[in-house]
Amino acid sequence: MKSNFNVSQKLISSHLIDGEMNPGEEVGLKIDQTLTQDATGTMVMLELEAMGIDRVKTEVSVQYVDHNLIQADYRNADDHVFLKSAAQKFGIWFSRPGNGVSHPVHMERFGIPGKTLVGSDSHTPAAGALGMLAIGAGGLDVAFAMVGEPLYIKMPKILGVRLKGELPDWVSAKDVVLEMLRRYDVKGCRGMIIEYFGPGLSSLSAMDRHVIANMGTELGATSTVFPSDEEVRRFLRSQQREEDWVEISMDDDATFDLEDEIDLSTLEPLIACPSSPGNVVSVKEVEGKPIAQAVVGSSANPGIRDFWVVGEILKDKNVHPDVSLDVNPTSRQIVQNLIATSSFPSLFRSGARFHQAGCMGCIGMGQAPASGKISLRTVPRNFPGRSGTLDDQVYLCSPETAAASALTGKITDPRNLEKLYDAKYPRYEYPEDLIINTDMLLAPSEDGGELQLQKGKNIKSFPEFPALENDYKVPVILKMGDNISTDEILKAGVKVLALRSNIPAISKWAYAVVDDKFYKKARKVYDKHSGHIVVAGENYAQGSSREHAAIAPRYLGQVAVLAKSYARLGWQNLINFGIIPFEFARPEDYDSVEENDMIKLENVVDNFLKGEVQYAINETKGQTYELNHNLSPRQIKVVIVGGVINYFKMSSDKSMSILSTSDV
Amino acid sequence: MKSNFNVSQKLISSHLIDGEMNPGEEVGLKIDQTLTQDATGTMVMLELEAMGIDRVKTEVSVQYVDHNLIQADYRNADDHVFLKSAAQKFGIWFSRPGNGVSHPVHMERFGIPGKTLVGSDSHTPAAGALGMLAIGAGGLDVAFAMVGEPLYIKMPKILGVRLKGELPDWVSAKDVVLEMLRRYDVKGCRGMIIEYFGPGLSSLSAMDRHVIANMGTELGATSTVFPSDEEVRRFLRSQQREEDWVEISMDDDATFDLEDEIDLSTLEPLIACPSSPGNVVSVKEVEGKPIAQAVVGSSANPGIRDFWVVGEILKDKNVHPDVSLDVNPTSRQIVQNLIATSSFPSLFRSGARFHQAGCMGCIGMGQAPASGKISLRTVPRNFPGRSGTLDDQVYLCSPETAAASALTGKITDPRNLEKLYDAKYPRYEYPEDLIINTDMLLAPSEDGGELQLQKGKNIKSFPEFPALENDYKVPVILKMGDNISTDEILKAGVKVLALRSNIPAISKWAYAVVDDKFYKKARKVYDKHSGHIVVAGENYAQGSSREHAAIAPRYLGQVAVLAKSYARLGWQNLINFGIIPFEFARPEDYDSVEENDMIKLENVVDNFLKGEVQYAINETKGQTYELNHNLSPRQIKVVIVGGVINYFKMSSDKSMSILSTSDV
Repeated sequence: MKSNFNVSQKLISSHLIDGEMNPGEEVGLKIDQTLTQDATGTMVMLELEAMGIDRVKTEVSVQYVDHNLIQADYRNADDHVFLKSAAQKFGIWFSRPGNGVSHPVHMERFGIPGKTLVGSDSHTPAAGALGMLAIGAGGLDVAFAMVGEPLYIKMPKILGVRLKGELPDWVSAKDVVLEMLRRYDVKGCRGMIIEYFGPGLSSLSAMDRHVIANMGTELGATSTVFPSDEEVRRFLRSQQREEDWVEISMDDDATFDLEDEIDLSTLEPLIACPSSPGNVVSVKEVEGKPIAQAVVGSSANPGIRDFWVVGEILKDKNVHPDVSLDVNPTSRQIVQNLIATSSFPSLFRSGARFHQAGCMGCIGMGQAPASGKISLRTVPRNFPGRSGTLDDQVYLCSPETAAASALTGKITDPRNLEKLYDAKYPRYEYPEDLIINTDMLLAPSEDGGELQLQKGKNIKSFPEFPALENDYKVPVILKMGDNISTDEILKAGVKVLALRSNIPAISKWAYAVVDDKFYKKARKVYDKHSGHIVVAGENYAQGSSREHAAIAPRYLGQVAVLAKSYARLGWQNLINFGIIPFEFARPEDYDSVEENDMIKLENVVDNFLKGEVQYAINETKGQTYELNHNLSPRQIKVVIVGGVINYFKMSSDKSMSILSTSDV
Repeated sequence: MKSNFNVSQKLISSHLIDGEMNPGEEVGLKIDQTLTQDATGTMVMLELEAMGIDRVKTEVSVQYVDHNLIQADYRNADDHVFLKSAAQKFGIWFSRPGNGVSHPVHMERFGIPGKTLVGSDSHTPAAGALGMLAIGAGGLDVAFAMVGEPLYIKMPKILGVRLKGELPDWVSAKDVVLEMLRRYDVKGCRGMIIEYFGPGLSSLSAMDRHVIANMGTELGATSTVFPSDEEVRRFLRSQQREEDWVEISMDDDATFDLEDEIDLSTLEPLIACPSSPGNVVSVKEVEGKPIAQAVVGSSANPGIRDFWVVGEILKDKNVHPDVSLDVNPTSRQIVQNLIATSSFPSLFRSGARFHQAGCMGCIGMGQAPASGKISLRTVPRNFPGRSGTLDDQVYLCSPETAAASALTGKITDPRNLEKLYDAKYPRYEYPEDLIINTDMLLAPSEDGGELQLQKGKNIKSFPEFPALENDYKVPVILKMGDNISTDEILKAGVKVLALRSNIPAISKWAYAVVDDKFYKKARKVYDKHSGHIVVAGENYAQGSSREHAAIAPRYLGQVAVLAKSYARLGWQNLINFGIIPFEFARPEDYDSVEENDMIKLENVVDNFLKGEVQYAINETKGQTYELNHNLSPRQIKVVIVGGVINYFKMSSDKSMSILSTSDV
């Protein structure tokens, strides 16, 4: 039967385990590959340990170490030791510290057209450059994929973007995705896969496409997809993996849910002004502002070309005395290939500061700019303070614009270099043969069963959570307003996030932003009762996908949240860790309930299983509130057994009747 | 007249302004060059500002930025901006961030045989490799040298160490200074200059000598001195500065206060075990212990040879999977020259993590090892916790030993490589012509008078301190025991030291370790009285030379300390910032005085000027204590005008009669 699929639909249909490909409907996808990095990976490994698995079931899983490379104290180094031991134990590739940023390394060494990839890093979609379906997700979703469970997502709409023409001199891939951000801003592609097609593709290298796919995340897209064409074949050949290539292109009569077009030949150098990737203007509009820093690198400009072009622009010239030019190479292999070019010594000679391969300044690991001074960066994000400087002025741009500005000391349209220095645009030619270095990728062990996890003193096993009881009598220990974010439930920052592998320690910070006595109160209550309840208004647990905002409250005995409504990811996380996200059937009940009220929840498990309405009896006030929930049958099972990890452990245990009841 | 001087005596006698060259007597030395780094330099620049000078008077002063390069927040970057502006204003060379570690860069670009150098960094003596007299000192001493004042030191004894023979294969300069540490331990050379001489010198390159001179500091020496011979000439020629060479050698009949001898041919690879540079054993004795990290670089192994040899040892081999090999290059120029060798790509290929040029892990700026795991380092110090990891296990060794161990994953005598890998010892040949890069050294401005200092929000001008009054009635607000260290007076650590350029902010931490209410008490008292007094036992203000342990109390109104005795550096700092260090004439008076006693000091200035005894009248107890002081006439003037900075500002002001009184 002849299909009429675009590339996205081909990738989804070939991995569809559950559901229909109707935009908005939940679909379950088989996952072939996973990617974890060190900042999220430690919790993923602890979750795998808690699930009691011996070995991951994916075709390829890779643990990278790229985020926390500075090692200000023992904790980062302890994490590296732990991750290596976990990778060996569970059958995961381990990319050693300093080997490079996950996304380009994964694309170079592991990416295969036609495969699915889920990663606990929001820029995972970069691998879409190879004709993969690559999606970023929370740690537990990735852990689940690793043990062979499907990834559930809402079927996205497909936005087809037709590219035509060729990029002019001094304009590069970053300007293409900045043009997308100029058109759609940071939320314009939510619920979509962006699929690029058309004749303009032929002039974009695989790594150029990586740049564009990577920052699809900034557009809010679920993923970005490119076809697997001759350029992908050339790329894989240069990586000595041509055998991994398959052609994947859209069918002739395929259509898209939405369509757009970019004429590459009309683009000019663009720049995203502080403090959002969506604040895009032409470089011309902000030219002349003095800068203090330029940072080149990150997964949003990772290729050898992106560094080479900077070295060429700086050849026989010096970085302006007021500017720190920080070069963050993205992988060891890229550096080795760069060394083989004449551009490399030029970077050093010109005054650039050359750092180890990793995420570095992109995620605020060093390289914070001076107060109030402008920093130009090729990284994907410029949210306020992300650089490490509270009043930062971070602009996002191409390597060409960053290099030109580092030279002149002010924001400079790189096209001006032709006049200023009689420069000709340096156009990189990809070599036939690259240096390939896989020595820093440790292959999974043959059998890790006997291996021990090496846990430093800041790494604690995932706590065991009890199953749901049928009856509760628990106090309300916190009442919150609308739009409480995960940052308020569990704040970020170096001090707190350093405890991410230590639930007992991080739980001391639960709700500390809202109520600094919460931890003590919750502990005290948990000694006397079977837990506690918190009450919230609309849109509870919005913001970052931080799992700890559910794990820590759960650790402190949180049975349920009673809220007017929930943010999607926060709601999902509550269920994943066994907290019931109830909604007030009558929003006005929110006004009646108060802190310290004693709440009875009767027949909770029975009501879930029978599909009957749950009531909360407020003993203190003598009131009864009707509660709703939107849990699917699968999610009901998850909550009853105490969360996804228990669910996984028990799913093969026949004595757990509720899990073998196929009709629930 | 024929002299019979050794090199040390020649250097001192040619710069002697004050005193006689008798060991133990104070001598005042003319200073030709100064060196400041960013961690200490910000305070030096604020002191220069407070002195109101236009331009430094030294032949060469250089401000380096090598310590705080990680930029975890805005403060480091703000410091860099401030230091650049101060260097321009005051006529100081500025070595841009990432240009390299002060000591090797200074030696390569600025060091001149026969000159004196004082630096606000304890490893300043490294420049002794060139036949200079180079001494580390506190910030204010360096600031004083910059404005043309002499440096006062106690005339050291000269320890002549005769070197003979040649180093065997796999043994290098680090093993020579480790042999010295094995013999003398970390305090054995206090009050001495170590002068190396003899036939063994001919096989030690200038950079080898730097390694040895650098770690003279760990021996407790005031400085280390080498002759300026043909090797120094070759070194300066390769730096395109042969014109700066002069021969300096000891006279034929010169003698030393003490003598020792090392036969280089008998040395074997040595290693300093945790947690002191003096815990030296042969590598053989600790062979086989598993390691987790090796760090190569720092001012204690800064030369191109030290990196080249590592690259050669690792050629076509990989860093062991359990080991992180961190390469901290010492300067941009050294990296550029290294790039020109085949050793450079080998470092990358083998798996080393290559960092920007700077001090990095040596001063705990990143690269902290995992808990309890062994880290081998070529750095000068392994004090507990200095690496950033509390329970660290840091061993100090040569690059050869570090590389061999990184390869095998355990402490390895590099001589074993001959058997293990059929390796031949790679011996570096210095090239005739080096790549010279001075572009990142900003020359002093012609006239900085009009330039403004650029102060970030964490950088505050040095506060003005009042002159001494004649009569005081002030309370004792703290009574301490014996051996109070500067760490107790003003603690170290990232949080507090980050405030080092902000006296009002850092003063909040004064004595916080001893009494966390001190700051509030002092502020309250200062509002009502003309200041306060503290009382201490023996050896007050021992430990680190931290100036802030005097500046912060003075800022909070400290008039005097009454103690049984003082540590030398702490005593000096009190005087420098205008606090009187009184001693109880009868130690038993210490027992009588208590916190909150009100003390009267009458005719303080008059008594100082007339040389009469000072009494403290304890009004609360109705007692009188006789007080001593050991201040020299110069120091009396300093205290009366309110400290060294006031002294400098007023010294040309004829209306300040006490300063023009030559007989005081």
